[in-house]
Amino acid sequence: MEFTHFDNQGNAIMVDVGAKAETMREAIAVGKIKVSPDCYQAIIGGTAKKGDVLGVARVAGIMATKRTSDLIPLCHPLMITKAEIQFVLHPESSEIEARCTVRCSGQTGVEMEALTGASVCLLTIYDMCKAIDRAMEITAVYLQEKSGGKSGHFVNEVHL
Amino acid sequence: MEFTHFDNQGNAIMVDVGAKAETMREAIAVGKIKVSPDCYQAIIGGTAKKGDVLGVARVAGIMATKRTSDLIPLCHPLMITKAEIQFVLHPESSEIEARCTVRCSGQTGVEMEALTGASVCLLTIYDMCKAIDRAMEITAVYLQEKSGGKSGHFVNEVHL
Amino acid sequence: MEFTHFDNQGNAIMVDVGAKAETMREAIAVGKIKVSPDCYQAIIGGTAKKGDVLGVARVAGIMATKRTSDLIPLCHPLMITKAEIQFVLHPESSEIEARCTVRCSGQTGVEMEALTGASVCLLTIYDMCKAIDRAMEITAVYLQEKSGGKSGHFVNEVHL
Amino acid sequence: MEFTHFDNQGNAIMVDVGAKAETMREAIAVGKIKVSPDCYQAIIGGTAKKGDVLGVARVAGIMATKRTSDLIPLCHPLMITKAEIQFVLHPESSEIEARCTVRCSGQTGVEMEALTGASVCLLTIYDMCKAIDRAMEITAVYLQEKSGGKSGHFVNEVHL
Amino acid sequence: MEFTHFDNQGNAIMVDVGAKAETMREAIAVGKIKVSPDCYQAIIGGTAKKGDVLGVARVAGIMATKRTSDLIPLCHPLMITKAEIQFVLHPESSEIEARCTVRCSGQTGVEMEALTGASVCLLTIYDMCKAIDRAMEITAVYLQEKSGGKSGHFVNEVHL
Amino acid sequence: MEFTHFDNQGNAIMVDVGAKAETMREAIAVGKIKVSPDCYQAIIGGTAKKGDVLGVARVAGIMATKRTSDLIPLCHPLMITKAEIQFVLHPESSEIEARCTVRCSGQTGVEMEALTGASVCLLTIYDMCKAIDRAMEITAVYLQEKSGGKSGHFVNEVHL
Repeated sequence: MEFTHFDNQGNAIMVDVGAKAETMREAIAVGKIKVSPDCYQAIIGGTAKKGDVLGVARVAGIMATKRTSDLIPLCHPLMITKAEIQFVLHPESSEIEARCTVRCSGQTGVEMEALTGASVCLLTIYDMCKAIDRAMEITAVYLQEKSGGKSGHFVNEVHL
Repeated sequence: MEFTHFDNQGNAIMVDVGAKAETMREAIAVGKIKVSPDCYQAIIGGTAKKGDVLGVARVAGIMATKRTSDLIPLCHPLMITKAEIQFVLHPESSEIEARCTVRCSGQTGVEMEALTGASVCLLTIYDMCKAIDRAMEITAVYLQEKSGGKSGHFVNEVHL
Repeated sequence: MEFTHFDNQGNAIMVDVGAKAETMREAIAVGKIKVSPDCYQAIIGGTAKKGDVLGVARVAGIMATKRTSDLIPLCHPLMITKAEIQFVLHPESSEIEARCTVRCSGQTGVEMEALTGASVCLLTIYDMCKAIDRAMEITAVYLQEKSGGKSGHFVNEVHL
Repeated sequence: MEFTHFDNQGNAIMVDVGAKAETMREAIAVGKIKVSPDCYQAIIGGTAKKGDVLGVARVAGIMATKRTSDLIPLCHPLMITKAEIQFVLHPESSEIEARCTVRCSGQTGVEMEALTGASVCLLTIYDMCKAIDRAMEITAVYLQEKSGGKSGHFVNEVHL
Repeated sequence: MEFTHFDNQGNAIMVDVGAKAETMREAIAVGKIKVSPDCYQAIIGGTAKKGDVLGVARVAGIMATKRTSDLIPLCHPLMITKAEIQFVLHPESSEIEARCTVRCSGQTGVEMEALTGASVCLLTIYDMCKAIDRAMEITAVYLQEKSGGKSGHFVNEVHL
Repeated sequence: MEFTHFDNQGNAIMVDVGAKAETMREAIAVGKIKVSPDCYQAIIGGTAKKGDVLGVARVAGIMATKRTSDLIPLCHPLMITKAEIQFVLHPESSEIEARCTVRCSGQTGVEMEALTGASVCLLTIYDMCKAIDRAMEITAVYLQEKSGGKSGHFVNEVHL
C-alpha cells in the first residue's frame, strides 16, 4: 500500500498521468450540513422575498469545482464538461444534503472536483446562516460513486 | 430570525460592515477525516522517506484561508494576520483532526476563513490518500470558538 | 491633463496612494443588456422552476467586485466592506439594467470595483441566455455616482 | 425557448458538453468606450513618453480571456489557443473600439471568452483615464461573429 | 537563529503579525535576465511596430505583486499602495535589469511582493523572447533595500 | 529574427497554436538560491522539529506551475499531466538548487510552467528564510532541457 503522490524519496509530486487513457469520467460526492430547526425552516422557506440560500450555495459549489486544482496542491488541472449540485432535504434531522456531480473526459478522475464542489457549497450555506446559528456542523462528506478510468466503477458501500 | 446576507427584497448582498468597529478577531474551526486503519498507519508513519501527507495538507489549508473570499460568494475580503493548522490524531478511530486558527484585525469575523482552511486541509488529505482508500469520510467540520466583534466570545457548547 | 497611471517616462505604474487619507468611499455603476422580447420574458419569468438568471448573475457580479484588482492591471487591492447589485427592468425596451454599489474605507475609490461588478453581472446574463438569443448587446456601462476622497461627490450629469 | 443553464427543476447547472464534438471554434466580440475629446487625444497620442493606455488595456483583455470561467459561474473551462485584441479608432465620436478574437479547439464555444476579453480591456481603459474623464461610457459590447460547433457560423446581423 | 515560519513543533505557520505596528513599508527588489546580443537588440528596439516586450513585462510584474500571497504559502495578504517596475539596460552584457518597488502601510514588509514582481517580470521577458533565444538566464534576483517596520532600513551591502 | 508574441503591427497577442500538433512535451528548468552558511545549515537540518523549508517550497513550486498562464500574459493555458521539483544541495557554496520538471500533452511547450515552478519555489525559500538572512540571492534560473513539439529536443549547452 503506497501513496502515489510521493516519489521514491518521499517528495510530494504531481504524479504523471500522461500515459493514462483519456476516458469519460464521472464522480458524485455528497455532504451534509446540520442546522438548528429554526435555521432549517428559514433556509427551506427561501423564496425570492426571503432569500435563496440554496441558490447562492449551488452557484458557489459549481464555481468551486473549477478552482479545485488551485486549492488542492497535487491535483491535476482538468477540463470539466459538467458540474451540478442537487440538494436533498432531511427535515427530520434539520440537515441539508448537497450532491455534487462532475464529469470530464480526461486522464484522471474528478473525485476531488466533486468533493470540493460539495464542500464549498456547504461552507456557503454556513456563511449565509451563521448570523442565525453558530453551531452548525458539516458532516458526512464523501465520494459516493465514480466511474471511468482503469479502476472502473466504484460505489461507496459503507453508505449503502 | 433573519438572514443578514439578503436585502429586504430577498436579494443576496455582501452586507455592509463599514460601520462595525475594527477589533482583533480570532476563530478556531475543526474537522476530521476518517480513514481505514491501514491508511491511518500510512499517514502517521509519514517520514521524509514515505511522504509527509500532513505537511502538504497543512500548507494547502493555510493557503486556502487566503482564498476564502474568492470561494464564498458573500464573504468579505480580509487581511489575515495569522493562520495555522494543528493536527490531533485519533488512532482508536483512525481519524485525523485538523484545527485551523485564523486571526485578523478587522470589521468582520474570520469564521469562514478558519472553516475553509480546515476543509481544504482535509480535502488535501483525501486527495493524497485516495489511491489507498476511497471510502474516507470528512466529518464534524464546525466552528469551535470565536472571539472579537460585537457578539463577543463564542464557544461551541454542543461539542464540549 | 495628464494620466496618473504613468510615471514621467510614460511607464505604467500602480500609483502611490499611501499618502491619501483613508475615507469612506462609495461608488455606484450601472449598465444594461438589451435582449430580444422573448428572451426578456424568459428572464423575467424566472422562478425556481424556470431558473433564476438574475439571481445567478447577481452572485457573479458581487464575486467579481472582489476580483477587480486581479483583472485591472493598475488597480489597487481594496478591502470592500459592501457590495450589492440591484436590477431595474425596462420591459418597453427589453433591457435589464444592473446597478452595482460598492463601499470601502480606503485610500482610493471603488469605481472600478462597481464597474467590474456591473460588467460581469451583465456578461453572466449574456452567458445564460445565449442559447436563446445571440444578438444581445451590453450598453451604457458607466459610473453613476461616487463619494469619498479628495475629489468629493461626483454625479454623472450626462445621464441625469 | 428554454434556457440550457438550468435543469428541469430550474436549478443552475454547468451543462454537460461531454457529448459534443471537439471542433475548432472562434468568436469575435466587440465593444466601445466613449471618452471626452480631450481624453481621446491623450489616449491616441500615447507614445512611450506619455504612456501607452491601449498597450496596457490589450494585455489586460488578453489575460482576462483566460480568467473567463473563474468569473462567469456556469462557463466551462477551455484551453484557449489564441487571443488577440485589436483597436479601431473613431475620432469623430471620441470612441475607442476593442475587437477581441479568441480561438480554441473544444466542445463548447468561446463567445464568453471574447466578450470578457473585450469588456476587461475597456474597463482597463476606463481605469487609466478616470483621472481625466469620469463620464466615460462603455457601449455596444456584443458578439460579432462566431464559428465552429453544431450551430455553425453566426454573424450578428443587427450590426451589419 | 530560528525560522519564524514554523511553530515550536516545526509545523509551518503563517506567523501572527497582529501585534506589530502598522508602518509605511517599502521594498526594492532587483533581478536581471541575460539574453543573446541579437535578442537584446530585438528587445531594445521595441517600438510600437516591433512589439513592446518591456511594456508587457512591466504590466505582468506589477500584476504579480498583487498575487504574491496567492503564490507564496506563508506570506500575508497585504494592501499594496504602490507598485512600479523600472528597467536598467546593460548593453555591454546584453542584460535587462528589472527593479520593482512596492509600498504599503501594514504590519509586515513587502519584500516578497517586490521579489515576486521582479521575478514574474523577468519570466515574462523570457516568455516573449523564447522563440528567438532559448538559452536566456535569470540572475541576481535579490532584495536591494527595504524600510519600515521594527528592523528598520536595510540596504543589501553585498551588492554595493 | 522576429518575436512571435506580436502581430505585424507590433501588438501583443497570444499566438495561435491551434494548428500545431498535440505532442507529449516536457521541460526541465533549474534555478538556485544562495544563502549564508548559517542559513544553509538551518535549511538542511530541517526536521519535523525545526521546520521543513524545502517541503513547503516544493509544494509552492508545484502549485505555481498550475498558475503560470494566470501570471504570464501571453502564455497559453495548458493541462499539465506531471509536475515535480527536486532539490540539489551545494554545501560548498551554500546554495540550494531547484529542478522543476513539467509534462503535458499539448500544442505548445511547458518551458514557462517549469521556469515559473522553479522561480516560485526559490521565492518561497527566500520568504521562509528572510528572518535569518536578508542578503539571499536567486541565480541561474534557466531552461535546462525540453522535448516535444516541432523544434524537437533542446539541451542548454551553455550550462553543460
